[in-house]
Amino acid sequence: MAEAATAIEKALNEFRELDRKIIRYQEAAAVVGWDLRTGAPRKGQAGRSEVLGMLGAEAFQLATSPRMGELLEQLEEKEAQEALGEIDRKLVSVTRRSYDRSVKIPPKLYEEYVVLASQSESAWEQARKDNDFPAFQGYLERVIGYTNQFIDLWGAKGTRYDTLLDDYEPDMTVLELDEIFTSLRGQLVPLAAAIAASPNRPDRAFLEGLFDKEKQKEFSRYMLGQLGYDFEGGRIDESAHPFQTTFNLGDVRITTRYLPEDVTSALFGTIHEAGHALYEQNIAPALAGTSLCRGTSMGIHESQSRFWENIIGRSRPFWQRYFPDLQSRFPERLGAVDAEAFYRSQNAVQPSLIRIEADELTYNLHIIIRYEIEKLIFNEGAKAADLPAIWNDKYREYLGITPPSDADGVMQDVHWSAGLFGYFPSYSLGNIYSAQLADAMARDLPDMEALVAKGELAPIRGWLTEQVHRHGRLRTPKEIILGATGQPLDSSHLVKYLKDKYTDIYTL
Amino acid sequence: MAEAATAIEKALNEFRELDRKIIRYQEAAAVVGWDLRTGAPRKGQAGRSEVLGMLGAEAFQLATSPRMGELLEQLEEKEAQEALGEIDRKLVSVTRRSYDRSVKIPPKLYEEYVVLASQSESAWEQARKDNDFPAFQGYLERVIGYTNQFIDLWGAKGTRYDTLLDDYEPDMTVLELDEIFTSLRGQLVPLAAAIAASPNRPDRAFLEGLFDKEKQKEFSRYMLGQLGYDFEGGRIDESAHPFQTTFNLGDVRITTRYLPEDVTSALFGTIHEAGHALYEQNIAPALAGTSLCRGTSMGIHESQSRFWENIIGRSRPFWQRYFPDLQSRFPERLGAVDAEAFYRSQNAVQPSLIRIEADELTYNLHIIIRYEIEKLIFNEGAKAADLPAIWNDKYREYLGITPPSDADGVMQDVHWSAGLFGYFPSYSLGNIYSAQLADAMARDLPDMEALVAKGELAPIRGWLTEQVHRHGRLRTPKEIILGATGQPLDSSHLVKYLKDKYTDIYTL
Repeated sequence: MAEAATAIEKALNEFRELDRKIIRYQEAAAVVGWDLRTGAPRKGQAGRSEVLGMLGAEAFQLATSPRMGELLEQLEEKEAQEALGEIDRKLVSVTRRSYDRSVKIPPKLYEEYVVLASQSESAWEQARKDNDFPAFQGYLERVIGYTNQFIDLWGAKGTRYDTLLDDYEPDMTVLELDEIFTSLRGQLVPLAAAIAASPNRPDRAFLEGLFDKEKQKEFSRYMLGQLGYDFEGGRIDESAHPFQTTFNLGDVRITTRYLPEDVTSALFGTIHEAGHALYEQNIAPALAGTSLCRGTSMGIHESQSRFWENIIGRSRPFWQRYFPDLQSRFPERLGAVDAEAFYRSQNAVQPSLIRIEADELTYNLHIIIRYEIEKLIFNEGAKAADLPAIWNDKYREYLGITPPSDADGVMQDVHWSAGLFGYFPSYSLGNIYSAQLADAMARDLPDMEALVAKGELAPIRGWLTEQVHRHGRLRTPKEIILGATGQPLDSSHLVKYLKDKYTDIYTL
Repeated sequence: MAEAATAIEKALNEFRELDRKIIRYQEAAAVVGWDLRTGAPRKGQAGRSEVLGMLGAEAFQLATSPRMGELLEQLEEKEAQEALGEIDRKLVSVTRRSYDRSVKIPPKLYEEYVVLASQSESAWEQARKDNDFPAFQGYLERVIGYTNQFIDLWGAKGTRYDTLLDDYEPDMTVLELDEIFTSLRGQLVPLAAAIAASPNRPDRAFLEGLFDKEKQKEFSRYMLGQLGYDFEGGRIDESAHPFQTTFNLGDVRITTRYLPEDVTSALFGTIHEAGHALYEQNIAPALAGTSLCRGTSMGIHESQSRFWENIIGRSRPFWQRYFPDLQSRFPERLGAVDAEAFYRSQNAVQPSLIRIEADELTYNLHIIIRYEIEKLIFNEGAKAADLPAIWNDKYREYLGITPPSDADGVMQDVHWSAGLFGYFPSYSLGNIYSAQLADAMARDLPDMEALVAKGELAPIRGWLTEQVHRHGRLRTPKEIILGATGQPLDSSHLVKYLKDKYTDIYTL
């Protein structure tokens, strides 16, 4: 008995140390990656990519090592499982999950794929510039081909597309998403139409013109402080595309991009990334330095960024509180505007071509289109060559607009070129989760709107930390939602939220 | 024959790849280290140190692996040596040098030492703050003890202290340094005394007061451009202590620190680090990605920083050219000053307590004191307990001042606490090399002063690149100096340079 205990202890220590080493490699890679995107000089970038490649390969090798397999088996035995605490048990199970996925792909095949994906992304970039889908089509077809090989190797769970989905949102299925997205689409398409028909449109004319970048910067930093972002545990920098990255529990960074012609682009970008960062900064210290110390899924992560960006940041009480602060920084531009007008200006709904520029409502239709196309590719065998036509048909049907070019149509996103199939649904899941969480939060904090109107955001952040952040990957997305809201995933909260908001703004 | 050739080729490829992998680890560690010193948030630093430790350990493991030993042996065979090109032959020999040094230290002993050195550095920091040498003495004694163990393991070359010297300045010996430093001290001590007795002192009163940091920043960047620093292959940031760091040949960074109360502290710091950076940016591309792609020694590196900082940056023609540029940025402060007065103000000589604040002349006396004490420790068995008294005696004798406290005396530098014995001489070697290089340069570029006065610095940089930079570690320090100047190391050039300069300024 004592001997077995010692053997378990030894295996556990070795397993934890192996996990920790992988984490350290990931931290090094994160630092190097952050640096590449926040001002690394042009001439050093090729060499740096080699460093990133090596760090990734070393971490992968450790994660898929035969020793890792042996340790997992040892720690999965009944006696070991009974001896393990909650954290270690969970660490074993999440590691098993990624181990099984990774070891099924022959390293040579994976290397080929990494090279292809990188070439494909470059080809996409050029083809998009030239509006030349045929120049990209061959790459896309090959990326789809490799992805299909991976599905074969992983073994399809449910439909073939389920296997991809599972990588970004554990336990999410096509069956569930179909139901959710169909219902969502059924409600949002007519809502968007009603809004389009409304004569009561928000005025945006006063937003035209330039807003000093330094003042925007100062206001974004001010807002980070208001949200409770911990500057002693992170920093904010500039990059071409805003992102959040975690080095360790005490160093969670965000970046943003300031546009002089848009007074709120950087602000909402900052709030969005801060939502991700608040998640990562508030994971329980007990999980620090383990693979459990990160957000539990892409969708739950996105729920945090969307919650702060949209549900708080684009709300009326938020602007009641913060518009005077913004106004005082741009008195010559916003002196004659009031909080209500500003709130309205930030909530215009307009079907548009480009996902990343879409409003809160139509954004979901962009995602549903991509989800449906991804299913067609992997479950119905749609070919790369078919995608432009399918894309344009769906945009006509759901958004009432036809892309004038493939560059602004099927080629607008980088994801597919890089093989990121199954990723898009997370964005809308984030919206759905965020509305459901807000509904539950309002039950626990009935004066939530009043708190926002007073700028007292700590109780709101505290609720999210308690229900979501602190658990890291100890809980699955489904467990988080059930635990926080008492219900399984339910898109009706998002629909109600959007209906209420826009009925009011557009007096529908 | 063909088979042997193939075996050599295989070994060479494997050896190069191993070297390249070590380089990649070093690059990752350099990025992480740079980040830690340029704004990493406080709370993430402990975790980050673990990452640095791991990257260092992995690189060390590769560098001392049995496989590395086998490959070196294979490539050192006569047939292989004949088949290898110049670069590979040199790569083998420099790798052999560090391999032999590293493998002689048992890993367990080295680990103990790393822990001790880190504790000792912390103890030094606190003891210096408290002006409490006895609190630090035990650590220092133990660091000396470990260093003595290392000398035993490495095997003494010449005197025991030679073994330490060799690590920072390959092939430099106590015999040679004794001669150089004795002669230097013999000339500089009376020169410093003559200066101290001169009534014709530079005026520094107009330097009192504050100089806007943003304007200093802009001027430093402007000066970097003038020096030919390549911004597409590097960047400049702020840190508590200025440094230069190389990630790869295309990414050579520097940092600086702006002091509002000192108009030239950041400027000279920037020029100094730029001197290091110009060296690293101009190594021949053929050496990129190998262990040869860096400065050949601490001393030669320092010669480049000192050349630009002192011989150019503190020269009369430099300020003839650039004072108007500085003046135009601070018209209210410097409007009534002329270039000559400013030049003089930047060349005041004043014996002082603290090495890093010393002028060009007395700086060398600070170094000679440290050199003599290090010899006493390792060649004569001086104990940590004896050092404060020895230190104070030498300061009295060479600089005519007595430290009022050990904090400003024997404890002023971090080096000894961290076990960096043998490092200090490089600083003065840098000064000596730089004057000798300047003398040779003046033969090739007789209009050198006129070039500086016109701000045409490219021919000067070009000469240094040709003679020093491009060779990386292909040449030893002695080969560099002999190749560039036609003579072995000779401190008389530095003495002449200082005598000429200060005789003029102080009308001696």
